[in-house]
Amino acid sequence: MFLDALTPVQEIKLAHWTQTMRRSMLRQMIAVVSRPGILSFAGGLPAPELFPAADYAGATSHVLATDAKALQYGPPFQPLKAHIVKLMAQRGVTCTEEEVFLTTGAQQGLDVLTRLLLNPGDDIILEELVYTGVQQCVAPYQPQILPVSTDLALGIDVEQIAAYLAAGARPAFIYLVPDAHNPLGVSISRERRGQLVDLALRYNVPLIEDDPYGFLHYCDVMEAPMRSLNASHVFYLGSFSKILAPALRLGWMIAPAELVSKLTVAKEASDLESSALTQRAVAAYLDAGHLPAHIEKLRSEYGRRCAAMLNALEYFFPAEARWTKPTGGMFIWVELPGSIDTVDLLETAVTQEKVAFIPGSAFAVPGHQVTNCLRLNFSNTTVEQIEDGIQRLGVVIKQYVY
Amino acid sequence: MFLDALTPVQEIKLAHWTQTMRRSMLRQMIAVVSRPGILSFAGGLPAPELFPAADYAGATSHVLATDAKALQYGPPFQPLKAHIVKLMAQRGVTCTEEEVFLTTGAQQGLDVLTRLLLNPGDDIILEELVYTGVQQCVAPYQPQILPVSTDLALGIDVEQIAAYLAAGARPAFIYLVPDAHNPLGVSISRERRGQLVDLALRYNVPLIEDDPYGFLHYCDVMEAPMRSLNASHVFYLGSFSKILAPALRLGWMIAPAELVSKLTVAKEASDLESSALTQRAVAAYLDAGHLPAHIEKLRSEYGRRCAAMLNALEYFFPAEARWTKPTGGMFIWVELPGSIDTVDLLETAVTQEKVAFIPGSAFAVPGHQVTNCLRLNFSNTTVEQIEDGIQRLGVVIKQYVY
Repeated sequence: MFLDALTPVQEIKLAHWTQTMRRSMLRQMIAVVSRPGILSFAGGLPAPELFPAADYAGATSHVLATDAKALQYGPPFQPLKAHIVKLMAQRGVTCTEEEVFLTTGAQQGLDVLTRLLLNPGDDIILEELVYTGVQQCVAPYQPQILPVSTDLALGIDVEQIAAYLAAGARPAFIYLVPDAHNPLGVSISRERRGQLVDLALRYNVPLIEDDPYGFLHYCDVMEAPMRSLNASHVFYLGSFSKILAPALRLGWMIAPAELVSKLTVAKEASDLESSALTQRAVAAYLDAGHLPAHIEKLRSEYGRRCAAMLNALEYFFPAEARWTKPTGGMFIWVELPGSIDTVDLLETAVTQEKVAFIPGSAFAVPGHQVTNCLRLNFSNTTVEQIEDGIQRLGVVIKQYVY
Repeated sequence: MFLDALTPVQEIKLAHWTQTMRRSMLRQMIAVVSRPGILSFAGGLPAPELFPAADYAGATSHVLATDAKALQYGPPFQPLKAHIVKLMAQRGVTCTEEEVFLTTGAQQGLDVLTRLLLNPGDDIILEELVYTGVQQCVAPYQPQILPVSTDLALGIDVEQIAAYLAAGARPAFIYLVPDAHNPLGVSISRERRGQLVDLALRYNVPLIEDDPYGFLHYCDVMEAPMRSLNASHVFYLGSFSKILAPALRLGWMIAPAELVSKLTVAKEASDLESSALTQRAVAAYLDAGHLPAHIEKLRSEYGRRCAAMLNALEYFFPAEARWTKPTGGMFIWVELPGSIDTVDLLETAVTQEKVAFIPGSAFAVPGHQVTNCLRLNFSNTTVEQIEDGIQRLGVVIKQYVY
């Protein structure tokens, strides 16, 4: 009735932030480098051959056969919260079921916290090299990012944070991966954890403690999370993606109990609720007592792969290269001589040796330059592939160095 | 090191929008009224006894036993997209796999579109009575809501929209539930669908067409969605929640192909990706050809329940009451005499007759008053319960009328 037949079709107007939208280089590359024939250290994928597929299938079948609520809408599954309280105790964290908030993966925890804490244009503190998912979460809010450097042995530079705060900055939050940092592989020292919590309380700034790798440690002990030091200002994010399987899309947050109803509203906007079926199937898997042995298996195998990669780097990489020595997680961060551009190196490595990694620049916050670094994943390849691949990568790098 | 032991613990500052945060009355009430002994017409729950639990368990077991990628991170599962193209054809929509975007339920589709299209403070057009989930999505953006009334026989008031647009308003989007509207139970007339698409093109305003109930029609034909009339300005949202099960948390969007990569970035921020396992299990269920017979079963049973409720309303409700006559979906909207406050009525109904519904005010946009209406759900109770419950509710209402 209204339309002139000759009206041209116009382009839909998108929100302003989309003009600076960038696809996660990391997730784009996962598609590219997972082509057959490429030996990839690029992704952050767990080892699929270690997934407890049969046990989880058993748990799912059991739940679907016995629990009429498994396929319905419903409130968070309380027995799963009880399991998470016990899991947290293993990490040295005391919490209650009322502080457990279930999420559709830890990424949703980040997204929901962003919604709860961040106003458009607010300040936030991020490391210069940081998990790409947090940058994607905050992008629509176009925040001011206060960048902080990271010591490759001790973790985030606390003095730099203290200086921002002392100068009057009041960021909406500080985002941290204290154990087995992605992409750097470093864990924050015990002393710095205490200092971070002190700063959070002194300046009333919440900490987001993202801990996907905390159960995957390859040394005898791992530091307790910051959430063990403070309950009022630390939002802890946990995940079943790395200790069970990513496709469950199930994680959790430990948050102040009085904020859980607000978190619930923010989460409802996002996906109403996490799958009742998955919540029950994971609880059934945990009921059966499978998890401790499974985590032991992961630690043993990933520890072997990590050691193999560290050895291979020592043997095959040029003497000028430096890398982190992770005590957990999935990643090693490598610094090459400053003249090497790792984006260029990647193209050569893929073309010439069919080996892939992620250039460090994929993780840089806007304005931060990092050209000579790369991230290696050791969880998704066998020891043999690691030795072979690092050797081949070493060959390519030496062409650039010498 | 920094903390004075006497520094009091301060309250964390939340984003501004949280001051006007309201918990969905609907979702809060679902918890309350699902207590044992309450006969509830309140929720929007499908019938759990009709869930294809055994077939879905079979599909899941098959996938977990045969597909090594089922528990891993991975790209959207293309065979599921192919199935969705075929499903859309049944709704009269022609689309390609490149236009199919998988979501963690239709709610996530809404959330991702909000992120893509809405700037803080922008205008949007919503009906005065609207699905609560869309209000929750937009809340953090504190938009200006341009409210539009809805005709209970023909759907949203198109002339009112035309007037806003003619006066210069350029909303970020118009949100619509064209078939079996939640909460009103009305479907938009064929003529109005065409007019809405014309307006969208003329003024370059995208339409969000939310269609969770489109496959659940209880008449011989149902109008084709607006997406069948236009592909450039209509974002169609589909869902497996009502035709298979809510706990799958799986839905889809049909969007212009050139926007899918941007939608992907917005979705990654939200939950990285939808469960690879669920995508494959649903595809396996569809491969097995179970869906057409299952939808027939749902249509037959829900149609019976809908008819039973309409009959019972005729028989047991006072002559002054009016209600919609849905041809699909799950809801009937009832208008009582203006003197009756349905929030008050609910309390009496629950206490005295142990029958529950949702007061109409739960769905009102801010500023819109609706005191004498209620929403009834007919999908989650048997015909016998419907006849019994509507009789009991009629008794309570008649106490208010006479």
